[in-house]
Formats: sequence, C-alpha cells, structure tokens
Amino acid sequence: MVTAFDAMNAVGLVAFAMVGSLKAAEREFDVLGVAVLGVLTALGGGATRDVLVGRVPAVLQSTADVGFALLGVVVAVLLARQVGGGLLDHPAVMLPDAVGLAAFATTGALVGHSAGVSPFGVVVLATVTGVGGGLISDVLLQRVPFVLAEDFYATCAVAGSTAFWVVVTAGYGTAVAAAVCGGLTLSLRVLAIRYEWRLPTVRLRAAS
Amino acid sequence: MVTAFDAMNAVGLVAFAMVGSLKAAEREFDVLGVAVLGVLTALGGGATRDVLVGRVPAVLQSTADVGFALLGVVVAVLLARQVGGGLLDHPAVMLPDAVGLAAFATTGALVGHSAGVSPFGVVVLATVTGVGGGLISDVLLQRVPFVLAEDFYATCAVAGSTAFWVVVTAGYGTAVAAAVCGGLTLSLRVLAIRYEWRLPTVRLRAAS
Amino acid sequence: MVTAFDAMNAVGLVAFAMVGSLKAAEREFDVLGVAVLGVLTALGGGATRDVLVGRVPAVLQSTADVGFALLGVVVAVLLARQVGGGLLDHPAVMLPDAVGLAAFATTGALVGHSAGVSPFGVVVLATVTGVGGGLISDVLLQRVPFVLAEDFYATCAVAGSTAFWVVVTAGYGTAVAAAVCGGLTLSLRVLAIRYEWRLPTVRLRAAS
Repeated sequence: MVTAFDAMNAVGLVAFAMVGSLKAAEREFDVLGVAVLGVLTALGGGATRDVLVGRVPAVLQSTADVGFALLGVVVAVLLARQVGGGLLDHPAVMLPDAVGLAAFATTGALVGHSAGVSPFGVVVLATVTGVGGGLISDVLLQRVPFVLAEDFYATCAVAGSTAFWVVVTAGYGTAVAAAVCGGLTLSLRVLAIRYEWRLPTVRLRAAS
Repeated sequence: MVTAFDAMNAVGLVAFAMVGSLKAAEREFDVLGVAVLGVLTALGGGATRDVLVGRVPAVLQSTADVGFALLGVVVAVLLARQVGGGLLDHPAVMLPDAVGLAAFATTGALVGHSAGVSPFGVVVLATVTGVGGGLISDVLLQRVPFVLAEDFYATCAVAGSTAFWVVVTAGYGTAVAAAVCGGLTLSLRVLAIRYEWRLPTVRLRAAS
Repeated sequence: MVTAFDAMNAVGLVAFAMVGSLKAAEREFDVLGVAVLGVLTALGGGATRDVLVGRVPAVLQSTADVGFALLGVVVAVLLARQVGGGLLDHPAVMLPDAVGLAAFATTGALVGHSAGVSPFGVVVLATVTGVGGGLISDVLLQRVPFVLAEDFYATCAVAGSTAFWVVVTAGYGTAVAAAVCGGLTLSLRVLAIRYEWRLPTVRLRAAS
C-alpha cells in the first residue's frame, strides 16, 4: 500500500509541476518564473493544507518532493521546446495529473483525519491539497481558476474525501479509507476526462 | 448580548455566502464553483484571521457556520434563477451584508484583543475578518477587489475596530467595546449605502 | 552590523510601501485602498514568512515597521500629486527598493535558518520575504506579478539566500552569512537595473 501510494504521489508531483510550468511558458515568463510556477503548482496545495492545520509546510523541511517538482519543470521545458502548445490537453499530461489529484486528495484527507477536524474539514483539506497548487498558479497567471470554471475536477476530490469520511465513520481503518478515496477520486477524474463530464452551470435569468 | 451577536453573525454568514454565489453565478461557473465561492466568501475572512493568530480555522472544526453559508448559497441560486441580475445592489442583500460586516469585524477585534496583538493588529484582524472572504472571492473571480476600489466598505470595519480599541483602552470591558464596534461599523456602512459615501481617490498628476 | 541592517530594513519598508501605493494610485483607488496596498507591499512578505514558520506575524505585535510603511504611503501620495506618473521606474524609488529586497531576503534567510528548515526552505523563506508583498499587491491589482514576468528581481533574492546557506554550511556564523546574502542580493539587483539584465524566457514551439 505504502509503495503504491508513494509512487502515485511522485507521479502527481511531476505531473502537477509540468502543468504549472506549461501554463507559465504560454505567457513567456522567464526561466525562474516558469520554475516557480511549476514548483508552486506541485507543492502549493500541500503547503496550504499544512498551514491550515498549524504545521510548518513539510516541503520546507524535506527535499524529496522538491526534486520531483523540479524534474517536472525540466521535462515540461524540454517538451515545450520540442512539441509546442497543446500539451496541457494531452493524455500524457492529463492522466498523470489525475493520479496526482487522487494521491494529493488522499494525503489531505489523512492529514485532516489525524488533525481531528470535522467532516467538512476533511473534505476541505483534501480538496485544498488536491487543487490548491493549481488555484494559486492560476491566480498568479491571471487565469480564471480552472478548478472553479472549467471542469469536473475538484468535484472528484470532494467525492473521494467524502467517501474517506464515510468509510472511517463506518469503522474501517484509514488504510481502507485511503484506498477508497484514492480509487474513487482517480476513477471519477478519468471518467470525467474520457466522457467530458460537466457539472451544470448556474444561470441567472436574462439580464438586459 | 450574546444572542443578538449570534443572530448578527448568522445573518452575515447567509448574506456573505449569497454575495459570493451571485458573483460566481454571473460568470456561469458550475454548481460546485458557485458553492465554493459562496462558502469561501462567508468563511474565508474568519479562516484567514485564525491562521494569522496561529489557530486552526474554527470552521474546520465545527459545522454550524458551514450550514449558514450553504443556506446562503441555496437561497442565492434559487433567487438568481427567479429574479436574475441586479441582486447584488439590492437592499435585501446589501443590508444583511452590512450586518455581517459589523458582526465579523467585531469577532475579529475580539480575537485580536484576546491574542494580545498591537492596536494595529486589532484593526488588521477585524478588517481581515470582515472583508477577507470578499477579497479572496474577488481575486478568484478576477474582479478588482471591491474592498479596495469601489466603496466605503472596509473603512467601516477600520473605524469600528479602532473604536473597539479606544473603548478597551479607556478601561471598559470587551462587551461594551464589542457593542460599540458592531454599532459603529453597522451605522457607518448603512449611512454609506444610503448616501453613497465615497473616500477621495488619489490622483496622479496627468501623465500623457 | 545591526545598525546598518536596521537602516536597510527601514529604507526598504519605506520604498516598498511607496511602490505599492504608486501602483494603487495608478488605478485611482481611494485613499484607504492606496494605504492598504502600500502597507501590504511593505509588510506582506514578512507576514507570509511568519505564517509559514508557524509564528504570529511580528507586524501584528509591534508597531515600528507599520510606521515606516505608513511614512512610505504618505511620501508616495505627496510625490504622486506633485510629480505624476513614472516614479516607479525612477532610480529614487528603484534603488531604495533594491536595498529593501536585500534586507528582506536576509531577514527571511535568518528566520529560515533559526527555524531549522531545509536549504530549499531557506531560499523559499528569503524569497517570500523579499518578493511576497509585491506579489500580493500585484494579485490584488490584477497585474501580472512583476516578480514572475518582468525582471531580474526574485533571482537576486534566490542567489543571495543560496549564498547565505553556502556560507553557513561552510562553518561561518550567521552574521557573516547575512552580510554576504545582503551584499550579493543588493549588488545583483543594482547591476540588473543598471544593465537591464533579463533571464531568458521559455518559448513554446510556434502554435498556430
């Protein structure tokens, strides 16, 4: 279990960093800007979660995750030079990104559970861990946050972490709950990509 | 006193969530996006304040406030479908929003006072509690923060919490100070709406 | 050493507040908005750093720094009325700003070192202290963050704090490391202004 989870987490860090770097490269940011955006996309969600539960962000204290994030930046820069635009919508980026969303949401749910927060808090922390980095980089890039506007994305983390809480409340251990959370988040996200799921939008009555 | 304050706080949570949801609905966000923006507008200021004083946000540990925020989201979505645009400038939204500003600024001043921060800190924490949620949602929606650009709004929280500090320093208890803070913030905001008060803008000398 | 450093810090607070206020004044924000942006630009980086290492922001507990920031706001408003636009690119603003960047990056590296974070953490905290306030105000003003897009700016803080870590690891005391960090950051920034250094941008292959 631990090994599979660690692998998912590493895949997610690389994929998230690639997404952040590619979004920054579209704006012709300089090399440092691209690296910062990539690293922030990969590590920003977890760091925000740690601040919310009163911990110094783990990423300031260990360096393995930083290495995976920087790897993602390097791969993205090399690919961007070879392949050009369109990578952000390519399955080779979207599928690892889905793996990362599942791994990060699961980590967030576990941290929330061990911090003794409410069910709402577990879902918030799982979702922040999964989508916080992308949200921060979208704000810095002055993009409408993709999480809010475009896609069946955050919804997967909300569903997965709700399932986590249900499974724990039903008396199962956190290992089972984590497997359910990760599996459900990943499955929903892959299905959403495959079938282009959308949540309904809220429409105002026509204003002149 | 406690009952009146709790009622003001609940009114504010519902009103703030309505404002956030309506702003998100104008952008045709999906249902989850609208709910997230509404909840964030209602709870984001208090959560930011808690992080600043080193506490795990109260809202991750209890669920009553989340319920009021979700109520505001539901009301806003139903109203938006019936009534259409223009609700954000309607007294039925602006007056409860003013009540919320007063309640939140007062909570922030009380938290700052009990955390032993400086007078500047009390004003900052009161203002962050009152306007932080709206600021966060404006940033996510890529709107110029209404707090900074549009209105005699944050100014009311600054004035109310300054009065809080003056009253406490003069030797009165925090209950009196809280009543003065809430009353002054609410009065100023209602007068600002009624008479369309504006602060002067800072103009640069004409540049070509 | 302490005196020189305190002077650099004060110069930086005034300069950062001037930069923030001038950027807000360009948007015709009201007086409160201009003051908030100025103070946030001066104090936001240090406050963010304090939150990241689990401390209540120092600026909520003491008031000297707030005074310097407010001084910068007043000077900026008076100057803006007399002189008009163009101040942001004037050496009388850019050089004190460079001094502030050096002082803030050094403070951040020292805080990171005493908090026992990783080398990566030291660089992150130094850079956040140096550029965080400007980043926050750019986001609130809906500008592309200057730190990421425009300039050889954050790079100076990254280089200076990396040098800090190298010097400490080599066995020298923090006073020596702080002097090296501050001197290197300042020198690089002044050279970057003088010779208009740029980092290369990352270019995607041409997309239609």
